[in-house]
Amino acid sequence: MAMGGTRLRLLFLTLQLLLISSAKITLRFPSPAFRPESSSSVSIKSKLYETKYYTQILDHFTFTPQSYQTFQQRYLISYKHWGGAKKNAPIFVYTGNEGDIEWFTQNTGFMFENAPHFKALLVFIEHRFYGKSIPFGGNKDVAYANSSTLGYLSSTQALADYATLIIDLKKNLSAVDSPVVVFGGSYGGMLAAWFRLKYPHVAIGALASSAPILYFDNITSEYSFHSTVGNDFRAFVHMHVSLFDTGKCWRRSESENCYKVIKGSWQLIEDTAEQSGGLDTLRKSFRICKNYISAGALVSWLSTAFIYTAMTDYPTPSNFLNPLPAYPVKQMCKAIDDRKAGNNTLEKLYSAANVYYNSTGRATCFNLNDDSDPHGLDEWSWQACTEMILPIGGNNADGIFPPSEWDYAGRAQSCEDAFGVQPRPNWITTEFGGHNIQRVLKRFGSNIIFFNGLRDPWSGGGVLKDISKSLVAIVAKEGAHHVDLRFSTPEDPEWLKHARRREVKIIENWLSQYYHSSSS
Amino acid sequence: MAMGGTRLRLLFLTLQLLLISSAKITLRFPSPAFRPESSSSVSIKSKLYETKYYTQILDHFTFTPQSYQTFQQRYLISYKHWGGAKKNAPIFVYTGNEGDIEWFTQNTGFMFENAPHFKALLVFIEHRFYGKSIPFGGNKDVAYANSSTLGYLSSTQALADYATLIIDLKKNLSAVDSPVVVFGGSYGGMLAAWFRLKYPHVAIGALASSAPILYFDNITSEYSFHSTVGNDFRAFVHMHVSLFDTGKCWRRSESENCYKVIKGSWQLIEDTAEQSGGLDTLRKSFRICKNYISAGALVSWLSTAFIYTAMTDYPTPSNFLNPLPAYPVKQMCKAIDDRKAGNNTLEKLYSAANVYYNSTGRATCFNLNDDSDPHGLDEWSWQACTEMILPIGGNNADGIFPPSEWDYAGRAQSCEDAFGVQPRPNWITTEFGGHNIQRVLKRFGSNIIFFNGLRDPWSGGGVLKDISKSLVAIVAKEGAHHVDLRFSTPEDPEWLKHARRREVKIIENWLSQYYHSSSS
Repeated sequence: MAMGGTRLRLLFLTLQLLLISSAKITLRFPSPAFRPESSSSVSIKSKLYETKYYTQILDHFTFTPQSYQTFQQRYLISYKHWGGAKKNAPIFVYTGNEGDIEWFTQNTGFMFENAPHFKALLVFIEHRFYGKSIPFGGNKDVAYANSSTLGYLSSTQALADYATLIIDLKKNLSAVDSPVVVFGGSYGGMLAAWFRLKYPHVAIGALASSAPILYFDNITSEYSFHSTVGNDFRAFVHMHVSLFDTGKCWRRSESENCYKVIKGSWQLIEDTAEQSGGLDTLRKSFRICKNYISAGALVSWLSTAFIYTAMTDYPTPSNFLNPLPAYPVKQMCKAIDDRKAGNNTLEKLYSAANVYYNSTGRATCFNLNDDSDPHGLDEWSWQACTEMILPIGGNNADGIFPPSEWDYAGRAQSCEDAFGVQPRPNWITTEFGGHNIQRVLKRFGSNIIFFNGLRDPWSGGGVLKDISKSLVAIVAKEGAHHVDLRFSTPEDPEWLKHARRREVKIIENWLSQYYHSSSS
Repeated sequence: MAMGGTRLRLLFLTLQLLLISSAKITLRFPSPAFRPESSSSVSIKSKLYETKYYTQILDHFTFTPQSYQTFQQRYLISYKHWGGAKKNAPIFVYTGNEGDIEWFTQNTGFMFENAPHFKALLVFIEHRFYGKSIPFGGNKDVAYANSSTLGYLSSTQALADYATLIIDLKKNLSAVDSPVVVFGGSYGGMLAAWFRLKYPHVAIGALASSAPILYFDNITSEYSFHSTVGNDFRAFVHMHVSLFDTGKCWRRSESENCYKVIKGSWQLIEDTAEQSGGLDTLRKSFRICKNYISAGALVSWLSTAFIYTAMTDYPTPSNFLNPLPAYPVKQMCKAIDDRKAGNNTLEKLYSAANVYYNSTGRATCFNLNDDSDPHGLDEWSWQACTEMILPIGGNNADGIFPPSEWDYAGRAQSCEDAFGVQPRPNWITTEFGGHNIQRVLKRFGSNIIFFNGLRDPWSGGGVLKDISKSLVAIVAKEGAHHVDLRFSTPEDPEWLKHARRREVKIIENWLSQYYHSSSS
């Protein structure tokens, strides 16, 4: 059974472009050959929400004939625990990000688990141009054809979609006075934070998890992303069961060796590939299926594994991007540091990659040229070519890749080649700000929680310090990418339980303040 | 010398549509035959600012090929009193409204007069599609041709224009840390308030003068506008020189008669027109030139005079819409109440209209079908057909017109006929809010002054109560439309001086808070 890896363009990763320009090698992108939707998540889906569609306008900000076109926007809704319109019970809305909304919904257990406590209606809105929310008659061939149609895929249009849909939904439910709290992770977290800032009349607060709203326009160092990946492999986290304690605790272990082996792997692969018979050696070492191999494709395949494992280094087994064991970084480093495996570095790297690509143990070989897109994330490449210019490509001495600089010109050229479009690299900070955020928002805005886990490579672009009493940063040193939003498990460590309790507490405060203001 | 009257579509007045649907008569719109730009304002223009152009993008919110088109956006700039980039001296920006920016600039003396005190750079940005800021190659024939091009005329695009231009200008001046305060009156005041709410990272505060941001979506009564006009003619204001006081003071006088005569005039005109030779009687009474007359045109011409005189009932002689004496409402009522003039009501109404149309005394007859547009305001009719759906058309018992209801269907049909476009009546509140503004902004946002004069028919849609410590309402009972922004005169009453002093004080506080935050 052959398996690939979740592709790199995933989750606003535009690494393919970065690697092209830094490593000067041509890359292709592997992708998993199966959907990581477990049978349990399928049952969540069928039980926990209904699927609905809303007739959405194509362009909120102009009034051309084209702008009046409509499309069907999908949203998922769960009334199960809602206290109802008469009681002005709250509405929790997930501001969908760059993929199929069912996938994000199934990975946002926090909302389901807290709905009973808050008596909240749950709504998960799909982002335009993703999943089943496709403009131009739902026809992807048309919608994705070129910039004339893709041009309507933008963050500002998505936010206006959410405002429009929420207002209309509340009217239809006779629930105009029900307070709305928005939630989102990653790009969805950016949207949640921006939504609260731009539409305070629609949402009373936002939980923005792992939202790198400062990873634009040189606010955050271009080296931060890959440095964090490097640091994750230098100091991994694992569960520690003590003979003397009654409970469990987590522990941090150092492994300079693990980091160095990974950092050296890129050169090793290139050197090996250049030797006579080298590609065959690589193919055998990494169990690559017979169809396609190149040094570039292998580098991409391997870097995908390391980066996404760092991003999703969750404390319990998970199945977000790929099925993974608890603390997968630790598992990778264990494979790399294994003394019994001798000096065969390629074999050790394969064992590490196996943690990401083959935790089930069912794969016998891997495809490097698998181009499938199980979560419907492909159109992020359009967003990364227009407004979402996050300069994550640089590597300094701490980076997981050889030293390199973020190459804007390379990105622009790739975008010109792929879409015939020019990026607008300053647009996000023009529209949403980011520079001097402490000064700007100190006396402006309220009710946003910025959660960040410091093991998450994106965390460098997050808000890591409180801005004001009600613009709050929750920072989990041992946390990964929006770990707080995931379904809880009995094995969750104390720091994670604590972060979620704090989030619940803060949201309770927003709501009681709202009800107090309404009655006074 | 023939003169007409400033046309009714002026200053987001869409009265033509309202009157069409309520009075069921066809109206045409007169307009002045000269530009009310006095020789003194020409000298202001040539001395006080330079004219510049900025290459602006056509559509900020999409990435279609069309969206990348650019146009030349005009702005006026005065460095005269600027303290300079090195000192982070402030930048005062006027967010231009629906007309030629020179005209608004010349009527915004407040910024010129306070520039020396604040050492402020002054910038007045023209709104897209007005004046000389015309997309599509600056060609009005193309830009105004139909909804495919006019579609890019919208408030959100205008706000994004301002953000883009200001950020770029600051970069070019090496003044990225200079704080920006925005100013605007009327629709420009709405834009100023919304700009602070949507772009807090660009402007530290806003003075929004006579900005009816609540005149949307039934937040404010549809009767408010015409009731205020009626009340203005019931109780006019004038200067009172007391023999016993050393100074001057203003006084309010009642005149139920003045209001009743005006309110009865519409029927009187219709009745007269229906009599044999009636139109000739009307022509003679109102000194209408030989070319065109109808009851509808005369009603429009006369209502223009009453409404705009109420709106601009300034305490000193002015030349905003037309040249007017101080307290022009009083002058009109004086004519109507004049006992010496006997019982000839038409003659009295003519004398009142003469205050608005002929304060110079140079006109010998008036054109009703003058269609010129001296301030370049015509495209407001597009905005009033798309997003700016201000339901000002109703008349209750207090209204200046016969009882009538605001007729949305009539508006929509007119817009369909004129432009083939459907209004989006809920869009403004979706994008900018307005409902429950006290609750929504009580703990969100800061640093906006909402000035309103209660004699201004628009004031009913303004923010008339403080929302929080830094979202402040300044209400001048005797004030008219953005009177605070006008050049001061030695004759200004104390309430006006007081309002301006308060505004200056508040802006000083914003700036000192900003400098304090920057240094800490």
